[in-house]
Amino acid sequence: MNPQPQHLKSETRPLHSVWRKYLYDVIFEADTPLAKGFDLVLLWVIILSMAAVMLESVSDIEIYFGYYLRIIEWIFTILFTIEYIARLIAVRHPLQYAFSFFGVVDLLAVIPTYLSLFLWGGQYLLVIRALRLLRIFRILKLGRYVNESQVLLSALQASRQKITVFLLSVVTVATIMGTLMYMVEGGQNGFTSIPRSIYWAIVTLTTVGYGDIAPKTVIGQTVSSFIMIVGYAIIAIPTGIVTVELSNLQDKKNKAAAEQRQSDPCPKCHSLSRDMGALFCKFCGHAFG
Amino acid sequence: MNPQPQHLKSETRPLHSVWRKYLYDVIFEADTPLAKGFDLVLLWVIILSMAAVMLESVSDIEIYFGYYLRIIEWIFTILFTIEYIARLIAVRHPLQYAFSFFGVVDLLAVIPTYLSLFLWGGQYLLVIRALRLLRIFRILKLGRYVNESQVLLSALQASRQKITVFLLSVVTVATIMGTLMYMVEGGQNGFTSIPRSIYWAIVTLTTVGYGDIAPKTVIGQTVSSFIMIVGYAIIAIPTGIVTVELSNLQDKKNKAAAEQRQSDPCPKCHSLSRDMGALFCKFCGHAFG
Amino acid sequence: MNPQPQHLKSETRPLHSVWRKYLYDVIFEADTPLAKGFDLVLLWVIILSMAAVMLESVSDIEIYFGYYLRIIEWIFTILFTIEYIARLIAVRHPLQYAFSFFGVVDLLAVIPTYLSLFLWGGQYLLVIRALRLLRIFRILKLGRYVNESQVLLSALQASRQKITVFLLSVVTVATIMGTLMYMVEGGQNGFTSIPRSIYWAIVTLTTVGYGDIAPKTVIGQTVSSFIMIVGYAIIAIPTGIVTVELSNLQDKKNKAAAEQRQSDPCPKCHSLSRDMGALFCKFCGHAFG
Amino acid sequence: MNPQPQHLKSETRPLHSVWRKYLYDVIFEADTPLAKGFDLVLLWVIILSMAAVMLESVSDIEIYFGYYLRIIEWIFTILFTIEYIARLIAVRHPLQYAFSFFGVVDLLAVIPTYLSLFLWGGQYLLVIRALRLLRIFRILKLGRYVNESQVLLSALQASRQKITVFLLSVVTVATIMGTLMYMVEGGQNGFTSIPRSIYWAIVTLTTVGYGDIAPKTVIGQTVSSFIMIVGYAIIAIPTGIVTVELSNLQDKKNKAAAEQRQSDPCPKCHSLSRDMGALFCKFCGHAFG
Repeated sequence: MNPQPQHLKSETRPLHSVWRKYLYDVIFEADTPLAKGFDLVLLWVIILSMAAVMLESVSDIEIYFGYYLRIIEWIFTILFTIEYIARLIAVRHPLQYAFSFFGVVDLLAVIPTYLSLFLWGGQYLLVIRALRLLRIFRILKLGRYVNESQVLLSALQASRQKITVFLLSVVTVATIMGTLMYMVEGGQNGFTSIPRSIYWAIVTLTTVGYGDIAPKTVIGQTVSSFIMIVGYAIIAIPTGIVTVELSNLQDKKNKAAAEQRQSDPCPKCHSLSRDMGALFCKFCGHAFG
Repeated sequence: MNPQPQHLKSETRPLHSVWRKYLYDVIFEADTPLAKGFDLVLLWVIILSMAAVMLESVSDIEIYFGYYLRIIEWIFTILFTIEYIARLIAVRHPLQYAFSFFGVVDLLAVIPTYLSLFLWGGQYLLVIRALRLLRIFRILKLGRYVNESQVLLSALQASRQKITVFLLSVVTVATIMGTLMYMVEGGQNGFTSIPRSIYWAIVTLTTVGYGDIAPKTVIGQTVSSFIMIVGYAIIAIPTGIVTVELSNLQDKKNKAAAEQRQSDPCPKCHSLSRDMGALFCKFCGHAFG
Repeated sequence: MNPQPQHLKSETRPLHSVWRKYLYDVIFEADTPLAKGFDLVLLWVIILSMAAVMLESVSDIEIYFGYYLRIIEWIFTILFTIEYIARLIAVRHPLQYAFSFFGVVDLLAVIPTYLSLFLWGGQYLLVIRALRLLRIFRILKLGRYVNESQVLLSALQASRQKITVFLLSVVTVATIMGTLMYMVEGGQNGFTSIPRSIYWAIVTLTTVGYGDIAPKTVIGQTVSSFIMIVGYAIIAIPTGIVTVELSNLQDKKNKAAAEQRQSDPCPKCHSLSRDMGALFCKFCGHAFG
Repeated sequence: MNPQPQHLKSETRPLHSVWRKYLYDVIFEADTPLAKGFDLVLLWVIILSMAAVMLESVSDIEIYFGYYLRIIEWIFTILFTIEYIARLIAVRHPLQYAFSFFGVVDLLAVIPTYLSLFLWGGQYLLVIRALRLLRIFRILKLGRYVNESQVLLSALQASRQKITVFLLSVVTVATIMGTLMYMVEGGQNGFTSIPRSIYWAIVTLTTVGYGDIAPKTVIGQTVSSFIMIVGYAIIAIPTGIVTVELSNLQDKKNKAAAEQRQSDPCPKCHSLSRDMGALFCKFCGHAFG
């Protein structure tokens, strides 16, 4: 995406192509005031449309304002539809966009409302509507947060295997402990089945602790004290993993910066490596300025 | 704030100015015994005034001792008013102080009591009274904790963007998960609306787990087990971020100290950089003592 | 387990031995397509057999499908028995395998069903059935996760003593705090005995917080606020321990990789240690290419 | 405590002194089999006496076995009394021991039972009895855990100031948030007074979340969602602090070990600093073996 040749090309492009390039810059980039304005408006439309979805679920509000909320929902849906079509027009490869992650999210943002015309129980499409919120990340992606989310994602990705092993261990411990508690406590104390006991074990291991199911017998409380302390100790593991990964990424960044600094070549022998604080080049004896 | 020239200047200042300088030292600095005493008294007055605010909210105590507590509140308010006026007099730029963070906090510490004379429902100003507690940090700021809070604040500030991305992700996950659970569990199990379900999702993701709302269906418990494990894993992220930042700050401090140590110049060639444990200067061959 | 000589040996081995070697490769290794297929089938059989165990504990399902679930359980048990016998045949030292960790786990996977023929209350063997899940780790062990679990286990092992001291401190704090709360709150608020109060203290210190027992008096709430903040602060300790260990292991790995990189010997004097970025060998002055 | 001269001295000491030295070794050291046996017996007596204290608090057990438990308590008390007197005799400075931390703990282990002869309500001395558990740390102190607990304590001590600032911030945030919630929710939803609301805020911030008090209004739930996410994010701070301190201590240990390794002096010039992997001394050119 070297801007220079593209700009040169655009001078010889037909008007139609110039217009599409302009549309692309406004919708997908964030460099011009208009593009920034577009992002800001989109951000608010997304937030307001989510607010409308939420309010519709509150029964008191639904009763009095349901009619208006449905109108608002349709307005937002039409806005999102226009935006989706504009995106399809603006990009060079519409199909590639349509099947990209954000392309699918954009489509899912408009589909539920149209489907609700034909289907009963359209309310079961609510989660799909909630996915609209993911679109906020695209807006941020174009801003200054891109680096930070990259770093976080890299750290998570680098420690993916360690985290898989960790999660598998948690699930295994929860299963064995859940089965044990099902035997120890039994159905009359809320541990009515093994799946339910495993649910309890996960609630306990993760230190969430709702208290909807809680051990009542002395043995059960002893076993769960043990589980809690284990859970308390192993919470250290994902933290350690992510911290080390983040620290590694930081070290690489620091080292790259330090090498950049050191790599001013010696004016005489042009050797690229000078010791920290050296006054003379260690390869030719040239005195640094 | 070079003390030497200021002291010289003060000899030629009018009496009025000397007195203000003296007041400033007592109120804002913590070097003289009187200034330390002032801080200590202020610390206790703040704590006692907070205790009075709290006790007034306990209905049994309010009934029997409410009259005395209101008198005590007025005494504290008058003390704080005198202190606020003294601060305004002592500083060189009263307006700049008045609009500074602690200036506003100082003003908010006295206003609610005066307002309660004219307004009904003065109790809604309680939170403003609680802000008095923030004034404790000013007293500490003048003490030995200044470095430590600086380090913590720097670490938080340096990782501000990463934390913003993290919090936004938590809110997005909570919204999508909350909507999902609203659909799965429905109103009869406590998930009466999407906002309430999002509240539940945040309670779960952050491992707080009140248990006021808890999943009852098998699917709901499965989904929430998944949410809990996700929450358990992503708690690692802010921890990793802050740890790496603190570690960076520590490294910088250590490096600065090490450079300080190494920078005793060579007695012969006065080169400032000596290798760890070197017996001879690496720039002129002079033997170190 | 140098494969070369074994392969040479196998050419002169009797057919019986060749067949056993083949069986061993399929069951214990994961290099051939057949071995990978075996692992995959075993993985699913384990998961399905666990699912059957869980479903049997749900009373509604047990009533309608109990008969079929018991048949399925017998099918899985027979499959596991065949697998266990095959493992015994395949290995060179059957007894050594039988008493190894996974040998015992394999045996425990089949025993409960056979025992249920002779014993009443076979349901108390449920936990033993749940141990089947541990066998998943063997399958992973042969895969690409071996390194990651090794790193996690090494980190835990290296910090074993620190974690012991930490857990002992948590138990001591919980005991003293539990006794204190038993005195402060007393039986009428749920703190009916010291063991129960210790259980509460562990629930609180580990931030699980069921709420089945909660302080009701003002003193009790003050003491438990203190305990919570202590628990909140000391959760940092295991995290710190594991992070430092993981970071150490990572450093060692990085250093080993760096040394590997540096250890290309000098072409002239064959010295193995070259400085980072050096242009000339520091031992013989030979210019690197 | 140089053992050599002490041993020389003891040969010329009177029999009385030799006996005291022997007693000291058995009780305070852990090098001889007898001393190790003493520690082991003491460990079990402490654990059993704690078990007796706990069992006495369970009302069912108290009714049937209370008489025996009181006899057992007296036996343990007499054993601890003998041990305490033996310690007083064995040490050179009895008063210094008596006022040391463990001296006071040893005394507190026996006092409650004697006091119960003269005082009613001796049960309020239960916490003092629970302090016996602290004596376990002395036994460990003499073992191999001494290093590990030292490291943990050093890390906590080094970050004492940072942790103070952190805890003060948590308390301040809890106070302000508690006051806010008292106003928002009010007494009818369980937030009956500011102290109680602060207790709730601490329960929430520390992610304990009992659920005995939970927000019921929409505004209350919104505010507490915010508090939870803040609490979730700031839990990173103590973790970061302790991790960095532990990491620092580890670095120092590593560096000390590395210096030790490098400090084998050059056989020719006796310079103490050799570069990692150097084949020739960098100070005199002597070839290392």
